[in-house]
Amino acid sequence: MTAVPYLALIASVLALLLAYYFAKVVLRADQGTDLMREIGEAIREGAMAFLRREYRWVSVFVAAMFVLLLIVPIDGRPAASFAYLMGAVLSSVAGFIGMRIATAANTRTANAAREGAAKALPLAFKGGAVMGFSVAGLALLGISINYLLWVKWLGVDQAFQVVAAFGLGASSIALFARIGGGIYTKAADVGGDLVGKVEAGIPEDDPRNPATIADAVGDNVGDVAGMGADLFESYAGSIVAPVVLASLLVPVFLEGDSLAGNFGDAEGLLMYPILIGALGMIASIIGALFVRGREGRSLSGQLHTGQYVAMALTVVFAIVGTLVLFSGSPTIGSYELSAPIFLALTIIVGLFGGWAIGFTSEYFTSEHFRPVKGIAQQSETGPATVTIEGIAQGKLSTLPAVVLVVTMIGLSYLFGGLAFGEAGDVIGLYGVSLAAIGMLAVTGVIVAVDAYGPIADNAGGIAEMAELPPEVRGVTDSLDSLGNTTAAVAKGFAVGSAAVTALALFKSFSLTAGDQVFLDINDTAVTIGLFLGAMTPFIFAALTMSSVGRAAQAMIVEVRRQFAEIPGLREGEPGVKPDSRRCVDISTQAALREMLLPGGLAVVLPLVIGFIDVNALGGFLAGAVVTGFLIAIYMANSGGAWDNAKKYIEAGAHGGKGTDAHAAAVVGDTIGDPFKDTSGPAMNILIKVMTIVSLVFVPAFL
Amino acid sequence: MTAVPYLALIASVLALLLAYYFAKVVLRADQGTDLMREIGEAIREGAMAFLRREYRWVSVFVAAMFVLLLIVPIDGRPAASFAYLMGAVLSSVAGFIGMRIATAANTRTANAAREGAAKALPLAFKGGAVMGFSVAGLALLGISINYLLWVKWLGVDQAFQVVAAFGLGASSIALFARIGGGIYTKAADVGGDLVGKVEAGIPEDDPRNPATIADAVGDNVGDVAGMGADLFESYAGSIVAPVVLASLLVPVFLEGDSLAGNFGDAEGLLMYPILIGALGMIASIIGALFVRGREGRSLSGQLHTGQYVAMALTVVFAIVGTLVLFSGSPTIGSYELSAPIFLALTIIVGLFGGWAIGFTSEYFTSEHFRPVKGIAQQSETGPATVTIEGIAQGKLSTLPAVVLVVTMIGLSYLFGGLAFGEAGDVIGLYGVSLAAIGMLAVTGVIVAVDAYGPIADNAGGIAEMAELPPEVRGVTDSLDSLGNTTAAVAKGFAVGSAAVTALALFKSFSLTAGDQVFLDINDTAVTIGLFLGAMTPFIFAALTMSSVGRAAQAMIVEVRRQFAEIPGLREGEPGVKPDSRRCVDISTQAALREMLLPGGLAVVLPLVIGFIDVNALGGFLAGAVVTGFLIAIYMANSGGAWDNAKKYIEAGAHGGKGTDAHAAAVVGDTIGDPFKDTSGPAMNILIKVMTIVSLVFVPAFL
Repeated sequence: MTAVPYLALIASVLALLLAYYFAKVVLRADQGTDLMREIGEAIREGAMAFLRREYRWVSVFVAAMFVLLLIVPIDGRPAASFAYLMGAVLSSVAGFIGMRIATAANTRTANAAREGAAKALPLAFKGGAVMGFSVAGLALLGISINYLLWVKWLGVDQAFQVVAAFGLGASSIALFARIGGGIYTKAADVGGDLVGKVEAGIPEDDPRNPATIADAVGDNVGDVAGMGADLFESYAGSIVAPVVLASLLVPVFLEGDSLAGNFGDAEGLLMYPILIGALGMIASIIGALFVRGREGRSLSGQLHTGQYVAMALTVVFAIVGTLVLFSGSPTIGSYELSAPIFLALTIIVGLFGGWAIGFTSEYFTSEHFRPVKGIAQQSETGPATVTIEGIAQGKLSTLPAVVLVVTMIGLSYLFGGLAFGEAGDVIGLYGVSLAAIGMLAVTGVIVAVDAYGPIADNAGGIAEMAELPPEVRGVTDSLDSLGNTTAAVAKGFAVGSAAVTALALFKSFSLTAGDQVFLDINDTAVTIGLFLGAMTPFIFAALTMSSVGRAAQAMIVEVRRQFAEIPGLREGEPGVKPDSRRCVDISTQAALREMLLPGGLAVVLPLVIGFIDVNALGGFLAGAVVTGFLIAIYMANSGGAWDNAKKYIEAGAHGGKGTDAHAAAVVGDTIGDPFKDTSGPAMNILIKVMTIVSLVFVPAFL
Repeated sequence: MTAVPYLALIASVLALLLAYYFAKVVLRADQGTDLMREIGEAIREGAMAFLRREYRWVSVFVAAMFVLLLIVPIDGRPAASFAYLMGAVLSSVAGFIGMRIATAANTRTANAAREGAAKALPLAFKGGAVMGFSVAGLALLGISINYLLWVKWLGVDQAFQVVAAFGLGASSIALFARIGGGIYTKAADVGGDLVGKVEAGIPEDDPRNPATIADAVGDNVGDVAGMGADLFESYAGSIVAPVVLASLLVPVFLEGDSLAGNFGDAEGLLMYPILIGALGMIASIIGALFVRGREGRSLSGQLHTGQYVAMALTVVFAIVGTLVLFSGSPTIGSYELSAPIFLALTIIVGLFGGWAIGFTSEYFTSEHFRPVKGIAQQSETGPATVTIEGIAQGKLSTLPAVVLVVTMIGLSYLFGGLAFGEAGDVIGLYGVSLAAIGMLAVTGVIVAVDAYGPIADNAGGIAEMAELPPEVRGVTDSLDSLGNTTAAVAKGFAVGSAAVTALALFKSFSLTAGDQVFLDINDTAVTIGLFLGAMTPFIFAALTMSSVGRAAQAMIVEVRRQFAEIPGLREGEPGVKPDSRRCVDISTQAALREMLLPGGLAVVLPLVIGFIDVNALGGFLAGAVVTGFLIAIYMANSGGAWDNAKKYIEAGAHGGKGTDAHAAAVVGDTIGDPFKDTSGPAMNILIKVMTIVSLVFVPAFL
């Protein structure tokens, strides 16, 4: 049992070594022509500049939280503050590394695409995998080090507070990275397209458009850095939640003993989530090595192979690991862990639940199925009917997602109880919290496949800007469209795990508050909290959508100005170049300015409500988690469906490009941009950040 | 105290007499030219035909529920079944009367508009007031008769079950009237506009468009009959909820005594909501008499005067009535009602809360304020940005609405407790339930002002179709635009009261189930219920929006066919007429077919969940009430804002009609149609129907 944290250390170091190796491979590849090198340089510079400025702003916030956390000392020591800082720093480092390599992989992928998809695919995947394994490796590393340092070596009693603070650090970075990145990318995209495609009549990614570079930068800061920070937080949270819950359940197992540092037999329950993290990491590393470019095999098959191998191995490892860790039906306090195999089943429920949610997302957003075809059909009667149908389908897509999530909750609750021979109330909760780590055990490979998408997208943009032959663009387009599907699966994991993790953290919040909270829905304070909590995701969506609108307007004004003031730009005269740097700067400033209000609210609201009334805070969190989950699914799927309906038409349906139907579909796609890339994904992190803030500050509220 | 039901009887008879008098006045007015008479006839025929067919379908449902209710006998008698039937029948009768007069008032208003607004305004208002006072009068009549019959004369013990069943009857009619009417009106509107305005390039309400009559019929079946049934249910529900809650609280007051028929001192608490209903009715009657057409006074001033007089009188009556009913600080069981004036304060809180919610709706949907101006501004960059901003503003508008609702809940809870000298947990709930009846005490005049809108709208359409001079259309347009503002206030009352009523019914549900439900949010069944409940309004919105889309498509196909096959129709050759009857028929069939699934779900879902697990049902209802309220506000306000942004542009802003900005705003308006007139309003009734079904069937679940 004591070996578990060390095993996790080893697994995370292996993950980091894999990331290092992949980074080497990417950096060794050829960058292509001078023009490609120059464009790549501009994108990298813009992306890294944004990241640096974002980190500078966020560091002020992190410092403030560090100080604030001193009010909740653990055993009289500032353990929470330091664990928090570590979470924030490691998340930032993962983002930095991932971004650096992603912005190197894009030009190299474009260059490799000149020799065909089989060369380009593994390069793009390796670029994404650097992010994936940096994220997962550093997160697991941080959790194991914190556990060893504070709990094992320094003997701090309340393990859960330390681990939760680490999670909060990760959340802080993710919150701002997601919102800021989401606003950046869509401001550049929407603003650039509206002037370029609609007004000036030039194609997407055209080098004459001053916003093109900013758009490419946006793909990186939004889809790579923002998503990476999000998944760092999700992954960390999915391990943090069961560890915290397990340590809170120890008194239940040990029949009322206080949280006494020495967890005795019960420590296995704290170690178990960390063990699953380590085993899932090893499975992911093996899975990632299966993705190679082979001629003649379908691209999606090769990409999926990595995921499936990782998932299958995780199942096997989880079963074996569970049986080894809990060999011989140990007795924990007065409870006998009579059937540990049921704990492995909760992991498997989580893993397949996440995958299934991803699949339903794919059903609602892929052009191969009825919803997207129906939206495309509605384009024949104009943008209004396209929009109505897209909204309807997105809302409808909450049905299978909710059914899957409640099934997961129900099953893992049941299995959690059955592991102890009875379907007990409180014990079952441990099973629920395990489902989340099951879902995210293969984070390394999920992020790799997800971050692959924007790299392929960027490669396409670079091919266009560098005026490579059209067949190169054809190759990158095939890689990119594949990325859209794999991204849907990744989003399924992210949003599903957000719901389950937030739920587990919420249960931990109630357990921490103990007898001092009374969360009956009939209590008036709880009711009021429920209303306010359910409202918060609506407000969050409104604020982030308006932010995109405002930032896009600023971009539009600038692009119009350049077309008007730079002679020969619109006509594409040789040697005339737009002032891309200015557009990058506008996006950066707008994103940083606009992220403050929603980001701040997410932290301040639970604190304010918590200090007024803890029961109301309980209702607030429940309302926010449930509604946030629904809005996340709805907005992501509506946006994805509009995007693919447009692509479906561009591929020739309903008359293809240039028709009124296509124009209508473009409107849907533009509406969907902030849905799927700004507001929707921000919900995942919103619900977790609010829950974890509440959990960490419970001692101060009471 | 025993006089109260008789006072209510008298007040409701007075209301019905007023409706009768107003109907006489309307029917006496001149119908205008032969063409106007003919058009009016076609609209009336279409509307009444729809209502008859709708009632036929719904009567099957009502019969089934009548039988189903036999499984929850009260004192061994089928009281619930008969009270249910009475609620359903009275609601239908109110709808029938209101619709008959509204479809008579439209032509007469158009005719009166030829002599100016001062003649037309009172006629349109009186037409609406027939609906208003039929609705309020019959609802109050039904409640008092049921109370007298079952509780007083037949001595049935459980008063609350009888009254709740009456409410359920009203809900059943409202459910289908709202959904069916909402789909009908938008199918005709969206379908007709998309072919007529967009494809054929002919103006709105043009007699050449085959869907024009169906559109006018739709205004009646949606905005008059649908809204009337909704308000009948809301008003009945707002009285039912506190009566039910009071009778459930009797055992608390009498310290554990069973529900023993003889309520003793506590009966005053059951009578109190009925008293407020009676007093508010009298205030509304006086208010309605204040609306007269006077030259030289602003139209909105005259219409608002009626509301303000009614509200002011309600405040005075409530204070006096409370002091009289509870004179001398009566003792109720072991509780002393030491400060009854606080009960009057809960009424006042409700009344002003409803008004304030209406005002925030106006802020977000009127062209005089920033949100609509901002949406109009976004029209300069096309339909996508208009849509994004409209959605963002609608979501943002949930903030003040929720803040007002939770303030109302908190204050009325506090006052409810203070009336008994302590801010007690359960006693406070009575105060919350009173806020709803406070809000809807002036229903008669609210509905009058709301139903006035579609009559004015119809009059405009008739003026257009009958080719009256443009200045007549100018007069009706000024009446119509005023109607949009007053409708916003009415919607505020409707949605605010829906939240508070549903909440009070929910508390009653828990009290009825007593110790057998355990609604702690941490309970896994409650959590699962919460997810499923919060999801239901999303699914409901999706289904109703898709229904509108499908029905509109059917209409589009038919209108296109007529333009293609009827020679000279598009060109407007004299004597060539479209086949309007066919379009009316398509809308009718589509609306009836499409209302079955969402309507059925609203009844079946709580029954299924309740029979599986009552705790899950508790979570389900809480999730549905909160999310349904949010979505109702969001969809209604987004839709209203888009509508008025379009009108603002048509009045000359951003270049006016014919510009790209206007085209973009038209897209927003069309998207908003199902938002504000189908899906949004259906939420109010959804959350109440699900709660009241649960309440009535609790004995069967346990």
